[in-house]
Amino acid sequence: MAHIDLGIDEKEFPGITGPMRYRPETAKPLNELAEVLLRAPNTLPAGERELIAAYVSGRNDCEFCCASHSAFAAAQLDEGYDLVDQVRADLDSAPISAKLRALLRIAGAVQVSGRNVTSELVADARAQGATDTEIHDTVLIAAAFCMFNRYVDGLGTFAPAGRDAYAASARQVVEFGYGATVRTD
Amino acid sequence: MAHIDLGIDEKEFPGITGPMRYRPETAKPLNELAEVLLRAPNTLPAGERELIAAYVSGRNDCEFCCASHSAFAAAQLDEGYDLVDQVRADLDSAPISAKLRALLRIAGAVQVSGRNVTSELVADARAQGATDTEIHDTVLIAAAFCMFNRYVDGLGTFAPAGRDAYAASARQVVEFGYGATVRTD
Repeated sequence: MAHIDLGIDEKEFPGITGPMRYRPETAKPLNELAEVLLRAPNTLPAGERELIAAYVSGRNDCEFCCASHSAFAAAQLDEGYDLVDQVRADLDSAPISAKLRALLRIAGAVQVSGRNVTSELVADARAQGATDTEIHDTVLIAAAFCMFNRYVDGLGTFAPAGRDAYAASARQVVEFGYGATVRTD
Repeated sequence: MAHIDLGIDEKEFPGITGPMRYRPETAKPLNELAEVLLRAPNTLPAGERELIAAYVSGRNDCEFCCASHSAFAAAQLDEGYDLVDQVRADLDSAPISAKLRALLRIAGAVQVSGRNVTSELVADARAQGATDTEIHDTVLIAAAFCMFNRYVDGLGTFAPAGRDAYAASARQVVEFGYGATVRTD
């Protein structure tokens, strides 16, 4: 049971979708932020950006966001869930590019505190070919999921169990984008 | 020096204003979120909402956000900086309403983790007269500042020292709102 009365059936509107229906005024900029960060044209592929979101959400123990964005990442990465699982299990040994590994290390630092991002982490990402905009976006994606995760869990929302429960929203987000699954007008 | 080249004089565009000029696509939803949460009509006065933002930013050790939102709170609270200082120094003894104290306790829990928000904290806020929307907004303000703080510090932006440095932006935000100080188009 969510901490407040969201006026929804939580099985039908799990996780962030309940609070987004409850408060469309805040859902609008939240969905726009997710759309720009995770789906708008970018030199970082959408699957890699969703992987950053899943990685940070896992570190924040946010079951709904981690399961959702793992599904969104898996749907947009050639290696699917296998790669998501390997990154979440052991970043150092996961079979990803050196650039993505360096960006995920920055994201992991941001998850703890913005102050944990060091010049060395940034220099390493740049040495592996990351651009300033990619570093910027990685920091903001990681920071944004420190918000989304706290929003979802701070209101005590419901997270369905099992990957199947996230397959339909993955198809919707990949095809229609953020905002397609919730009414924000 | 910021971690990436923001293309600005950091003395002229300190803290979040540099990254917002650098990336107007993300600045737009970020400013809209701040506007809805902190300034739109609400049963929680704007000064109290800014106090929640300052309180969370202080707990995240984000110098720029804490100084900025302390200034914005002080400018909109009858007691000015005195009350901001008392809340930040000792929430239990600060001369605020029982409702605001209960909401700030929820915000403090969110700052650590969304999972730290307990049914007891929510029940206490409700017993002190907080509405579901006030509880929702408190959770999201606290969560949002866990993002803003990480964004500002994760990019290593510059925070001016001293209260005088934040007086002009306080006047601008109170009079014209978020988005008035940065170009987002």
